[in-house]
Amino acid sequence: MRFTSQTSRDGVTEQLFTLGEIPGALWTPDGAAGARPLILLGHGGGQHKLAPGMVARARRFVAECGYAVAAVDVPGHGDRPTDPEYDRIATGNQARVDAGEDLAPLIAGFQALVARRTVPEWRAVLDAVQGLDHVGAGPVGYWGVSLGCGLGVPFVAAEPRVRAAVLGLGGALASAEAAARITVPVEFLVQWDDERVPRAQSLALFDALASAEKTLHANPGRHGEIPAHELDSSVRFFARHLG
Amino acid sequence: MRFTSQTSRDGVTEQLFTLGEIPGALWTPDGAAGARPLILLGHGGGQHKLAPGMVARARRFVAECGYAVAAVDVPGHGDRPTDPEYDRIATGNQARVDAGEDLAPLIAGFQALVARRTVPEWRAVLDAVQGLDHVGAGPVGYWGVSLGCGLGVPFVAAEPRVRAAVLGLGGALASAEAAARITVPVEFLVQWDDERVPRAQSLALFDALASAEKTLHANPGRHGEIPAHELDSSVRFFARHLG
Repeated sequence: MRFTSQTSRDGVTEQLFTLGEIPGALWTPDGAAGARPLILLGHGGGQHKLAPGMVARARRFVAECGYAVAAVDVPGHGDRPTDPEYDRIATGNQARVDAGEDLAPLIAGFQALVARRTVPEWRAVLDAVQGLDHVGAGPVGYWGVSLGCGLGVPFVAAEPRVRAAVLGLGGALASAEAAARITVPVEFLVQWDDERVPRAQSLALFDALASAEKTLHANPGRHGEIPAHELDSSVRFFARHLG
Repeated sequence: MRFTSQTSRDGVTEQLFTLGEIPGALWTPDGAAGARPLILLGHGGGQHKLAPGMVARARRFVAECGYAVAAVDVPGHGDRPTDPEYDRIATGNQARVDAGEDLAPLIAGFQALVARRTVPEWRAVLDAVQGLDHVGAGPVGYWGVSLGCGLGVPFVAAEPRVRAAVLGLGGALASAEAAARITVPVEFLVQWDDERVPRAQSLALFDALASAEKTLHANPGRHGEIPAHELDSSVRFFARHLG
């Protein structure tokens, strides 16, 4: 793990790093010492670790809860090189949608493919970040919607250190099988008028989660229009489950 | 409006009253003076204005937000005389359920009948309570699930003083038409394994609300098993919309 920059603003320190070929960001309270809860943020499709919504969420969790927050670029996103295989699939999928094919199964297949790389990558990032003195081996949370849900469901299912997760904007087609192995508390976000994920698919993914404690929050609006009060709710959800 | 008792505990004053034939309870901060937001609580079927869950909710809203809270007994409930017509219908409905008929349409019909009495009663209670110096004409919220939703939807639709409502455990069969006239923010509670309200009926009622700002919270469990964290959420919802 190699740190490449460190900045501080409003009491929150942001460190950029690379772990092998994975570029990442870590946010912690200024002067943090000792173990604390850690939240891993998964970004959406076409976004990256420093997209404005990602940074805003990270800063909230650090400033309000004193947590550490980490995010990394998904292959083909942010500071990572374009991936010829992913590009070929994306171009092919676009052509199939233009020809009238359903979008949801294509998204599902693509996310399953990418998850085979990101699950081990994210577990390695967790190992490295938790090895730092100012993060340590506290409880871990995961926050990710859309692509961050498609990649997050298999990650949360595979990683016993994750104790609570905010997921959403994803469907059962992509993720039901892995969701059935998730038993930690989940807050699940649905956009009621989502143009990318059919409503029934969203509800079916919530239904598939094996968690005894899960809560679905649905709001009107399209895929990208999660209302601001849901971030307040995420803060409280993690405070409830990570301490 | 006639007050029949006044007690105080932990900073919250509870006054019992009657307005004509309607028995009610009013909770306010000890020593309250001047106008404040008011929340009207609707109780569930078989419950009453002083059921433990009602009192707990009322005390939370008063202690945390400084609001006034009022609740009255629905006809045939609490301190009100049994109603021969309602009794006859309830007995008849039970016989029809025992004979294999669906419960949901019977509940819907019964709630529509009772709402024709409770809507004008609750509006009269609002007039009277808002006439008190320590309540005044501040913004009004409504909280009611199950029977409190069946009666609450037509009330919120009819009463322009209501600025925000928590509703739920109710279905479209009973309430979709009135719900389509509701435009204020709504937080809508669904129990995912509700044995009384079919899931599709619950989702359809949420869908029917005309509110631009509405949020659905679904949790696993049966009709009566709303998790405790939803009361925290109700407190924040009203704080957001009533100030």
